[in-house]
Amino acid sequence: MSETKRTLRVALIGCGFMGKAHSNAWRQAMHFFPLKADVELNTICGCKGEEKTILPTAVAKWGFNKGSINWREVVASPDIDIVDIVAPNHVHAEIAIAAAKAGKNVICEKPLALTSKQCGEMYAAVKKAKVVHMVSHNYRRIPAVAMAKRLIEDGSIGTIYHYRARYAQDWITDPDFPLVWRLRKEVSGSGAHGDINAHIIDLARYLVGEFSEVCGLMHTFIKRRPLLGERKEGLGAKAAKKMGTVTVDDAALFIGRFQNGALASLEGTRFALGRKNQITLEINGSKGSLAFDLEDMNRLHFFDNTNAPDRQGFRDILVTQPGDIHPFVGKWWPPGHIIGYEHTFVHTVADFVNACVDGRPVQPTFEDGWRNQRVLEAVEASAKKRRWVKV
Amino acid sequence: MSETKRTLRVALIGCGFMGKAHSNAWRQAMHFFPLKADVELNTICGCKGEEKTILPTAVAKWGFNKGSINWREVVASPDIDIVDIVAPNHVHAEIAIAAAKAGKNVICEKPLALTSKQCGEMYAAVKKAKVVHMVSHNYRRIPAVAMAKRLIEDGSIGTIYHYRARYAQDWITDPDFPLVWRLRKEVSGSGAHGDINAHIIDLARYLVGEFSEVCGLMHTFIKRRPLLGERKEGLGAKAAKKMGTVTVDDAALFIGRFQNGALASLEGTRFALGRKNQITLEINGSKGSLAFDLEDMNRLHFFDNTNAPDRQGFRDILVTQPGDIHPFVGKWWPPGHIIGYEHTFVHTVADFVNACVDGRPVQPTFEDGWRNQRVLEAVEASAKKRRWVKV
Amino acid sequence: MSETKRTLRVALIGCGFMGKAHSNAWRQAMHFFPLKADVELNTICGCKGEEKTILPTAVAKWGFNKGSINWREVVASPDIDIVDIVAPNHVHAEIAIAAAKAGKNVICEKPLALTSKQCGEMYAAVKKAKVVHMVSHNYRRIPAVAMAKRLIEDGSIGTIYHYRARYAQDWITDPDFPLVWRLRKEVSGSGAHGDINAHIIDLARYLVGEFSEVCGLMHTFIKRRPLLGERKEGLGAKAAKKMGTVTVDDAALFIGRFQNGALASLEGTRFALGRKNQITLEINGSKGSLAFDLEDMNRLHFFDNTNAPDRQGFRDILVTQPGDIHPFVGKWWPPGHIIGYEHTFVHTVADFVNACVDGRPVQPTFEDGWRNQRVLEAVEASAKKRRWVKV
Amino acid sequence: MSETKRTLRVALIGCGFMGKAHSNAWRQAMHFFPLKADVELNTICGCKGEEKTILPTAVAKWGFNKGSINWREVVASPDIDIVDIVAPNHVHAEIAIAAAKAGKNVICEKPLALTSKQCGEMYAAVKKAKVVHMVSHNYRRIPAVAMAKRLIEDGSIGTIYHYRARYAQDWITDPDFPLVWRLRKEVSGSGAHGDINAHIIDLARYLVGEFSEVCGLMHTFIKRRPLLGERKEGLGAKAAKKMGTVTVDDAALFIGRFQNGALASLEGTRFALGRKNQITLEINGSKGSLAFDLEDMNRLHFFDNTNAPDRQGFRDILVTQPGDIHPFVGKWWPPGHIIGYEHTFVHTVADFVNACVDGRPVQPTFEDGWRNQRVLEAVEASAKKRRWVKV
Repeated sequence: MSETKRTLRVALIGCGFMGKAHSNAWRQAMHFFPLKADVELNTICGCKGEEKTILPTAVAKWGFNKGSINWREVVASPDIDIVDIVAPNHVHAEIAIAAAKAGKNVICEKPLALTSKQCGEMYAAVKKAKVVHMVSHNYRRIPAVAMAKRLIEDGSIGTIYHYRARYAQDWITDPDFPLVWRLRKEVSGSGAHGDINAHIIDLARYLVGEFSEVCGLMHTFIKRRPLLGERKEGLGAKAAKKMGTVTVDDAALFIGRFQNGALASLEGTRFALGRKNQITLEINGSKGSLAFDLEDMNRLHFFDNTNAPDRQGFRDILVTQPGDIHPFVGKWWPPGHIIGYEHTFVHTVADFVNACVDGRPVQPTFEDGWRNQRVLEAVEASAKKRRWVKV
Repeated sequence: MSETKRTLRVALIGCGFMGKAHSNAWRQAMHFFPLKADVELNTICGCKGEEKTILPTAVAKWGFNKGSINWREVVASPDIDIVDIVAPNHVHAEIAIAAAKAGKNVICEKPLALTSKQCGEMYAAVKKAKVVHMVSHNYRRIPAVAMAKRLIEDGSIGTIYHYRARYAQDWITDPDFPLVWRLRKEVSGSGAHGDINAHIIDLARYLVGEFSEVCGLMHTFIKRRPLLGERKEGLGAKAAKKMGTVTVDDAALFIGRFQNGALASLEGTRFALGRKNQITLEINGSKGSLAFDLEDMNRLHFFDNTNAPDRQGFRDILVTQPGDIHPFVGKWWPPGHIIGYEHTFVHTVADFVNACVDGRPVQPTFEDGWRNQRVLEAVEASAKKRRWVKV
Repeated sequence: MSETKRTLRVALIGCGFMGKAHSNAWRQAMHFFPLKADVELNTICGCKGEEKTILPTAVAKWGFNKGSINWREVVASPDIDIVDIVAPNHVHAEIAIAAAKAGKNVICEKPLALTSKQCGEMYAAVKKAKVVHMVSHNYRRIPAVAMAKRLIEDGSIGTIYHYRARYAQDWITDPDFPLVWRLRKEVSGSGAHGDINAHIIDLARYLVGEFSEVCGLMHTFIKRRPLLGERKEGLGAKAAKKMGTVTVDDAALFIGRFQNGALASLEGTRFALGRKNQITLEINGSKGSLAFDLEDMNRLHFFDNTNAPDRQGFRDILVTQPGDIHPFVGKWWPPGHIIGYEHTFVHTVADFVNACVDGRPVQPTFEDGWRNQRVLEAVEASAKKRRWVKV
Repeated sequence: MSETKRTLRVALIGCGFMGKAHSNAWRQAMHFFPLKADVELNTICGCKGEEKTILPTAVAKWGFNKGSINWREVVASPDIDIVDIVAPNHVHAEIAIAAAKAGKNVICEKPLALTSKQCGEMYAAVKKAKVVHMVSHNYRRIPAVAMAKRLIEDGSIGTIYHYRARYAQDWITDPDFPLVWRLRKEVSGSGAHGDINAHIIDLARYLVGEFSEVCGLMHTFIKRRPLLGERKEGLGAKAAKKMGTVTVDDAALFIGRFQNGALASLEGTRFALGRKNQITLEINGSKGSLAFDLEDMNRLHFFDNTNAPDRQGFRDILVTQPGDIHPFVGKWWPPGHIIGYEHTFVHTVADFVNACVDGRPVQPTFEDGWRNQRVLEAVEASAKKRRWVKV
């Protein structure tokens, strides 16, 4: 609130679902967090053809000053300080590298890119440009996850033996669900693996450390689906539906080892009926255990083996205590008043803004995005070779 | 296993559902608990008319040496050391008093009798006879409940502020469910109140202390029901069903105060669809809280306010640790191998047998049964007078 | 987004905790809900003495155009269309009546006022002025609660037998917690009763219907507390602390009957350690049951007795399905992406804005606030008279 | 109860922990289940050296007629109809083959033997002898698991996509826990893998079908432990403890595919602090999902995707309904009265007795034990070869 406070002007590249979440974060951060700069929602960028449709709606609805369909112009503009990339995965690299070259701080949705090669180039570009860079693995800033990190770092669970995570959804179990872009490899890179395993790999690296080797499988349960736009016609005339081939995995499972000796079991699936957006984590160490469920994200379960034997049990910690007792959450509401999905983006953006002002790195960086992609690729390689692969 | 060990010979009076649970307890106790005497399932007593039907089945199925339909003879017999009363509530008093006069140790199902006057007479009789006496409030010996008692006694939750309990079932929600004996006041004394509130009143007295005053309501949702034996005929011919009047409460709720200043809220209902046999307890004190659910009876939830603020939470204690870490349960199976409903009777009987050998009192005594009945009656009086009543 | 859309200009009267929640709602509603008018956060009103302190911060932080310390001027100003009252309870009536007289639409925090007499006057004022009026019982617009309402209205649980609710917090269990305004009757009206029982009474009236009679108790566990500002000095010098008398209840419990024959048990307490902001509801009917927990507010538990007997069980409905499948929530994020406390205010405000444009009533109205207060007062009267009281 | 009923005379070979569970089952079955034969606990067999110690205690405590230390005599005796093998794993084969040759019906604890070769020989022996044979995978007869089987078989969850199971314990996390026989490969065959993965492999085969290929890892976290008997001395003199090498796995994880196309992820670990004896299962199909937790074994969670979209959710089925509504459990207690670990053995024995009388096979047979062992060995081979292995 000091008059000398800078204003950081944001360009959001992309106007899909993630644009909604990110624009909300940019709007909300200043109302709840002590930002070192003001934030201006300067420009939102759509695709050609969206000038009269999605784009003006997004400008108005999400609170931007203006819209554009020319991302190159936008990322090069002197009016922009931060480029936030929420476009489809296959264009992340080009945009991020251009932004870095233009000296902009860059935040990019996950997965950072389609390949580790691309990721490496992006990471090189931001390092060279000395800009602040971040990959938007928003789940690191769930208060319960940040609290888990704190318990691990202060030794509360000791040496880690097991990391077990599952990311389960069910939105494509219906065989009539159409062949959307997320099911086409050329746009999305991979299926459940890159989309949701990427998240639990990030949490693994954040909470446990680097993987040393992995062995996995990837599987597509439903191999042919109606082309987009074919579904409605198809009703009552199923035989006539035009079908296309699903080129990504519906589920990907792997086991692995961390460099520190811990064992890993991870699974991402879009075929778990009843699990809408569930990450279940369990971490077991020599002194205690932690468990977490994204569908109940305000809680962290903590087993402390140093408690008296007759009163040991998983503690159901409602991570909503005020001040700095619990990470992030004290800026919102009083104890017991829970927060939700979108708040994790607000936390991410708030930390990014302050890092931009300070000119210091903020995790997870593009390096994290690149390392994450290497794990994803090692799993893919192992699935193809049907054996263990070093990361 | 010493050769000088006495054998205590048990007569079970009654052969309904509770007879099944008690006979199992008598059979099992010696196989799991270090009893100070051997136990012999000597005689089981049925009603007149059951000589050729229920009784021989019960003798064979439940493992008794013999059957009888003459309880007076049995309780007076020199072959009997322990009389266990599981007959309908309205005959408890007569049998227990006769047994006491004959010098037998007596264990009696709850509720102890239909009125506090009867209970008082029973209590006087056992005191006068100097026999060991117990009312079978089996839930006191659920390991999690006994653990709750231990935590309260060692001060772990501090001064108690709130006791909240609900006993919920749903077995008579169907209006076609017939007018069984439990719905007829002359046999059962009362409905949900005496049957299930009796249990949570006992737990209140065990865990918190004596009530000082209460105020309640009792209600019958379905006032007319098909007579027993009418149901089948009634199918397809509903108009023809003979109906009778329900003379007990379907639900009874009350609020109250304990002598130590704690507040109480209790509810017993047979009209809570989906709750099959659920007791939910919550006790809040100045240092912590306890919560329990009978349908998940191997767990106790304990909130310890002395934990560090960032890691407080209800602990989900699986009360199955070995040795004497947790009460009773170590005699059964290894940690994490849960026990069930019937085990609480085994614990009760095991403690009773040892008390008989030692000639010392064992809680809950007939005095507890009498005090329980006084609370039940105070609630009934308050419901009639529509105001608070001292206990 | 049509150009002819009106803009409704909001004045927020009060800048405490509730001001934070309401201002967020006014800011956010237009970004997620299809409002029939644009919303302008025109003015925020503080108290005298706050001109240089809280008020400018609130203006900046919460996004208002300007601040004022003269609520009379503000509510009379032609620049204002909506007056939103979040000031302390004892000034609600005066402000609301003035706003109504000035022809403003009024939304007021709960409890509507200190007495039913005041509430009645407020209700009369808004009716006479023909303005749109609403009391901010935000919990009605929790998606799971609105879903419960839908299930009740479509007959899914049949005739209601039981309504059981508990609102439990633990923020004043520490005897050193100071005598804040919420513990002083002259400002707050009552303690747990008016603050939190008001919420579960509102849910009772919303979900079940009108109360016919009640009987309750109110209790203060800690009767003397350090005066505000004394706490810090008190540390290390406890004897020197200046103490004051708590003039409100710490806990209030009551049982009751609804006009439709259902039974009620309600409890509000600030002395339940480990319960941060927990409402637990259970409603049992002739065809099914519902259960809800505010600390897990994205879920509704539904027992459907019409399911096949071998597959009945409480369904854990994650109330996050898109479109209009579940109420309100589809406007936010994809399935399984949970929302939190603040969203309930956004839903409330969104409905209020549309009602203002349409000039039609929107529940809960001031009549609801008045009826709520009458139930609160009946409970207070019953606690004093120690007998049942008609509502 | 008919006079013509046969009596089947049981010899129990072994008197460790499993002997306690099996003898209880033999004693209890007749009291709760309609057996086609009476059961006599004829002989219990111990090891040489146990004649005066464990054996007489076991005879008395567990209710056998007599004891023996000569299993060869016992299994050949004309006084025995059923041989129940609960001796250590490495002697299963020899005893079972001898029993089969003697024409006895054989029930054997899991794992059936140390190697699939041994298992195959055992299976050949019982087939040749035409005796009834069963491997005691007691968890198949948990009512909730049997109910899951029923739901799968009647198509309620459709085509199965995922089977995910974890068996987690924590009893050897303490590095001072001694080198007991279960940690020595020559006696136990393997560690967590054969001991507890064997159970969840059996459940996989029971519920989903045969594995086609697997890929796994096996790991020993603590490689040296105090020799048995060294622990106490070790206290206060740790340096002096004699240590030995752990020759089995502490944890074994694998992924796999079933012949029907479903994917598998399994984990057995003894290093999950806070998990005492937990099996968590989740099965996802095209129409629904099932979830189960052994520490809460009276419940089955069932998601039914055919429910209306606004009221879908995992149903928490308390598997305690009477009659034949739910499998097995109706023979015990009324609805909501839960059962525990030991009951699963009673169900197993009851089915075995009736199969013996009828002379028909009863699952799980020795063939199941043999197939189970082949999966275990395929996982071991894959862990060594570091690649996928066909089963």
